[in-house]
Amino acid sequence: MASIGIIMGSQSDWPTMKKAADILDELGVEYETRIVSAHRTPDRLWDYGKTAADRGLKCIIAGAGGAAHLPGMMASKTRVPVVGVPIQTRALSGVDSLYSIVQMPRGFPVATMAIGEAGAVNAGLMAAAILATNDSALAQRLEDWRAALAASIPEVPVDD
Amino acid sequence: MASIGIIMGSQSDWPTMKKAADILDELGVEYETRIVSAHRTPDRLWDYGKTAADRGLKCIIAGAGGAAHLPGMMASKTRVPVVGVPIQTRALSGVDSLYSIVQMPRGFPVATMAIGEAGAVNAGLMAAAILATNDSALAQRLEDWRAALAASIPEVPVDD
Amino acid sequence: MASIGIIMGSQSDWPTMKKAADILDELGVEYETRIVSAHRTPDRLWDYGKTAADRGLKCIIAGAGGAAHLPGMMASKTRVPVVGVPIQTRALSGVDSLYSIVQMPRGFPVATMAIGEAGAVNAGLMAAAILATNDSALAQRLEDWRAALAASIPEVPVDD
Amino acid sequence: MASIGIIMGSQSDWPTMKKAADILDELGVEYETRIVSAHRTPDRLWDYGKTAADRGLKCIIAGAGGAAHLPGMMASKTRVPVVGVPIQTRALSGVDSLYSIVQMPRGFPVATMAIGEAGAVNAGLMAAAILATNDSALAQRLEDWRAALAASIPEVPVDD
Amino acid sequence: MASIGIIMGSQSDWPTMKKAADILDELGVEYETRIVSAHRTPDRLWDYGKTAADRGLKCIIAGAGGAAHLPGMMASKTRVPVVGVPIQTRALSGVDSLYSIVQMPRGFPVATMAIGEAGAVNAGLMAAAILATNDSALAQRLEDWRAALAASIPEVPVDD
Amino acid sequence: MASIGIIMGSQSDWPTMKKAADILDELGVEYETRIVSAHRTPDRLWDYGKTAADRGLKCIIAGAGGAAHLPGMMASKTRVPVVGVPIQTRALSGVDSLYSIVQMPRGFPVATMAIGEAGAVNAGLMAAAILATNDSALAQRLEDWRAALAASIPEVPVDD
Amino acid sequence: MASIGIIMGSQSDWPTMKKAADILDELGVEYETRIVSAHRTPDRLWDYGKTAADRGLKCIIAGAGGAAHLPGMMASKTRVPVVGVPIQTRALSGVDSLYSIVQMPRGFPVATMAIGEAGAVNAGLMAAAILATNDSALAQRLEDWRAALAASIPEVPVDD
Amino acid sequence: MASIGIIMGSQSDWPTMKKAADILDELGVEYETRIVSAHRTPDRLWDYGKTAADRGLKCIIAGAGGAAHLPGMMASKTRVPVVGVPIQTRALSGVDSLYSIVQMPRGFPVATMAIGEAGAVNAGLMAAAILATNDSALAQRLEDWRAALAASIPEVPVDD
Repeated sequence: MASIGIIMGSQSDWPTMKKAADILDELGVEYETRIVSAHRTPDRLWDYGKTAADRGLKCIIAGAGGAAHLPGMMASKTRVPVVGVPIQTRALSGVDSLYSIVQMPRGFPVATMAIGEAGAVNAGLMAAAILATNDSALAQRLEDWRAALAASIPEVPVDD
Repeated sequence: MASIGIIMGSQSDWPTMKKAADILDELGVEYETRIVSAHRTPDRLWDYGKTAADRGLKCIIAGAGGAAHLPGMMASKTRVPVVGVPIQTRALSGVDSLYSIVQMPRGFPVATMAIGEAGAVNAGLMAAAILATNDSALAQRLEDWRAALAASIPEVPVDD
Repeated sequence: MASIGIIMGSQSDWPTMKKAADILDELGVEYETRIVSAHRTPDRLWDYGKTAADRGLKCIIAGAGGAAHLPGMMASKTRVPVVGVPIQTRALSGVDSLYSIVQMPRGFPVATMAIGEAGAVNAGLMAAAILATNDSALAQRLEDWRAALAASIPEVPVDD
Repeated sequence: MASIGIIMGSQSDWPTMKKAADILDELGVEYETRIVSAHRTPDRLWDYGKTAADRGLKCIIAGAGGAAHLPGMMASKTRVPVVGVPIQTRALSGVDSLYSIVQMPRGFPVATMAIGEAGAVNAGLMAAAILATNDSALAQRLEDWRAALAASIPEVPVDD
Repeated sequence: MASIGIIMGSQSDWPTMKKAADILDELGVEYETRIVSAHRTPDRLWDYGKTAADRGLKCIIAGAGGAAHLPGMMASKTRVPVVGVPIQTRALSGVDSLYSIVQMPRGFPVATMAIGEAGAVNAGLMAAAILATNDSALAQRLEDWRAALAASIPEVPVDD
Repeated sequence: MASIGIIMGSQSDWPTMKKAADILDELGVEYETRIVSAHRTPDRLWDYGKTAADRGLKCIIAGAGGAAHLPGMMASKTRVPVVGVPIQTRALSGVDSLYSIVQMPRGFPVATMAIGEAGAVNAGLMAAAILATNDSALAQRLEDWRAALAASIPEVPVDD
Repeated sequence: MASIGIIMGSQSDWPTMKKAADILDELGVEYETRIVSAHRTPDRLWDYGKTAADRGLKCIIAGAGGAAHLPGMMASKTRVPVVGVPIQTRALSGVDSLYSIVQMPRGFPVATMAIGEAGAVNAGLMAAAILATNDSALAQRLEDWRAALAASIPEVPVDD
Repeated sequence: MASIGIIMGSQSDWPTMKKAADILDELGVEYETRIVSAHRTPDRLWDYGKTAADRGLKCIIAGAGGAAHLPGMMASKTRVPVVGVPIQTRALSGVDSLYSIVQMPRGFPVATMAIGEAGAVNAGLMAAAILATNDSALAQRLEDWRAALAASIPEVPVDD
């Protein structure tokens, strides 16, 4: 059963959020993906949040752009940790998404990642790190992934 | 019965939002005031939004600061026009509130006002202007208020 | 007769502002379109504002970019609610338009929407919502439009 | 007769704009001061702009804060050079005023100064410099003022 | 033994970071506090990071201001989830801290919170939520805390 | 003889600054163009500034990008009015140019225009407006240009 | 003889720039202090820059606020390394100073420090580090200063 | 032996950082290039910093983007002067890189350059200027390079 939920405000966020899914695939972590729009499908958001803990979700990764209310509203509906990914936007480059996600009031944290694809990758890694606090096999796979990343860096830059 | 609802995320927003109430008092428009926190009392938000139109509300004025999800989430729950007031914040001066309120996605407009007290006054005036589109007596009072404002401006600045 | 006026600072704003017209077409709301430049045709602005209420306009949608004085100046000339759309700009991405439109002083609210096309769509919806406060048939069409939007969201994201 | 007009959006701008008046006093340039609110007294703005050239004004200094439409709207009503002073604001520190004043579209320049008091002083100096292009006595006084400013700078900083 | 480490760049960050400690006290979660400066005591950072997992830490809360390298460097040294708190700064209000903490590259997520005290409170709550994914008693206390917060919100705002 | 100097920091600024030259051509105002780099050719800047008034220049239009010291340094070397054009830049879109040009200290005003081409056009118009304060024929040509601009605006927007 | 010059745009910058002097005193490095205003005393700037290398200066620390042209103009007049300190400003908090100092064009680097007092301290340290590349005794004193700084950090934060 | 180290966070920074290498080639200064990632290869950073002074490095040029911890962490590990180059980023255009590099706390200066390629060129020039404080032949080559740059500027701009 999936222990991670990857949710996003619209289909157009998927190319970014897929990076979170890819890293979870690499690390052998099961997840589910859902489109949950805070504004267009608020009842879906309600239901998802209310059942999240009981369904066994250990972490919810939520991507959204612009006013980007999804991560914060999900955090208000469940005690399951919510990791937020600010989607890059056209006019404000994702600064709007970032401020809307990170500036949550006391009581409802959202673990905010970098704007865009790097943030989505890191959301997957953060979710895995949370699971790894209680799963030593995953902890080892995460350590290995980190070691491989370090080992992949050449010593000297090269021209194209 | 109240035709305008003034809602806000917390008691601490009231000194700002009271300016909206004051202007409605001046214009003889009835209103109700409620604390509705998007994150702490999401179910209250749901109920308020779902019943707003049937209860006869013609406009909802919503003030919030920081992540400021209240106006946008209310707009997702009701077709009643929502006027948003970005509350000034400590670190980001209300730019966070402004972006979170104004950058709504297609489908769910929030009529965003200026940051802080001027925005709250104007939220009251916008609500009155909306009612006035169908209330000629109020339209006249609004015109009079505007004329009085214009008449109050001296010709020449004076030293203190 | 048109109950909504869509005005803009120049022909170059039309591709954005047309999104407001499109949504009003979808909702069966009549409107007129005009180019009214605050700086190049200030007298046209004056006339438009002075006659707006008497001509039966219930809402004016005004799009402008950069210094973007049109929405605010129109708000100073008429009590008819003005909805402002900040046009995206080349150097400042529409932050200039947004600040110039939203930061109105006490007395003259402009109902500011998001920067760019999403803001134009939402301006149309806000105008319709204002009319709908007194037109139950339109209110129903707006509710239906919103329900259709919600229904159009798939449950799960899909690869291209 | 006054050759310079100092106008401002409200009495509250006077403490800043007085710095422009002071420098003109120092340089022996005659000026008039008026409160002209773009939004509250648009007809006053119209009249002021339409008669400015014929009344012999050679430069108009206009201070405004927030949406700050006064300088740009004045520039649309007269060919007399308009110098704009962005008043510092509470939430956005005058960045809103600056963008609204400086980002004018093709056709209607506003000679924008620094935010706040330094900008007001410089507006007075710019107005004097414009007059000085055709008044050799004033040109000399301006040169003297500049020389005195340079001469007043000590060589070495001192502790308080 | 402590399962949460609260670290900060300097003693001057403690008044902010103490809010994280307070909430953990309320929730009955054990923690340790350390000053670990990324620049002044980099070896202390190295040691803390290298031993964190083996010492049984499940989450590290790291507060820092300005260039704010502590949270990100800690994330590079350990797979234990790092929660970052951007301290408000004098010139840039914590926008510098926020960008330095949140804009981490692929591979090294930092779960970024809001700027300042609200962020510190939420860091404590996020740490508790991570522990609660595997501690049903703590999960219940967290649910109770959230319910109490919701219950504390009055219906109607009151004058002072 | 030229009464207007158009100067710029480098050849790469010419495509923008040429817009100032074009408008002066339209209005029949003579001008000269020079590359004057504040940093690469500071002595050229010195000489240009020191001789400007005596050579009969009535206004200097200065375009620069990035640190953009040219307009302000020219203002320190001559009492001739300096009009500054912030060139759009790659990373910061010209906000750096704008701040460096507009935020001049007391004593040395630069009449700052909008970022980029609109600013260059307006710099030409501002220079003409300054000359026109003492040249009634040019004043008339400027009035005509403005009237033609107003007359060119269609009433209704059209699809492409 | 002084090997470091500390210059600043005005006496009001001294309280900030004194922090650079203090650290040089601590490290036993000789310096001179001068007020050199780019705009008010450009010839003083010219002379200072032209003679700097021959007078034996190894580094120039230059503090300035707002348009802040001093560091960049000094860099254009001498090959001696220039370290720039952005002074905090009233309206824009020193972001204007920072952009004006750091965004120098190819050819004329300014070694830019943090905004305000921390930047001034660091300017002193950077100047010392430059001298230390060729003065082993100073290198040792700098190492000792750094070691003492590290040693001064307590392990655990304490309440006031 | 190399007296300058050019380091960068990843291979993707090389096209920018190569501009620093090119200018050092032009000036006849020997350098080495390394990829040193603060997060992926922190131990490499440690070793590089700890041995820098003893290996005879006189200056380290460090380029990094986003959270951009490399320059500041290097500055914490060595007294050798560190010159930082903020790499332009996708969402935030390098403002994130700039703030993370320039806003260093007391004790650990990074000589920050402009964002992007101009900054990399200038980093090379700053490194050369530091060496030139004790190498009169290089000082002469640097003077010649600056003179050639000045001589290359045409007097008058030309159309393409």
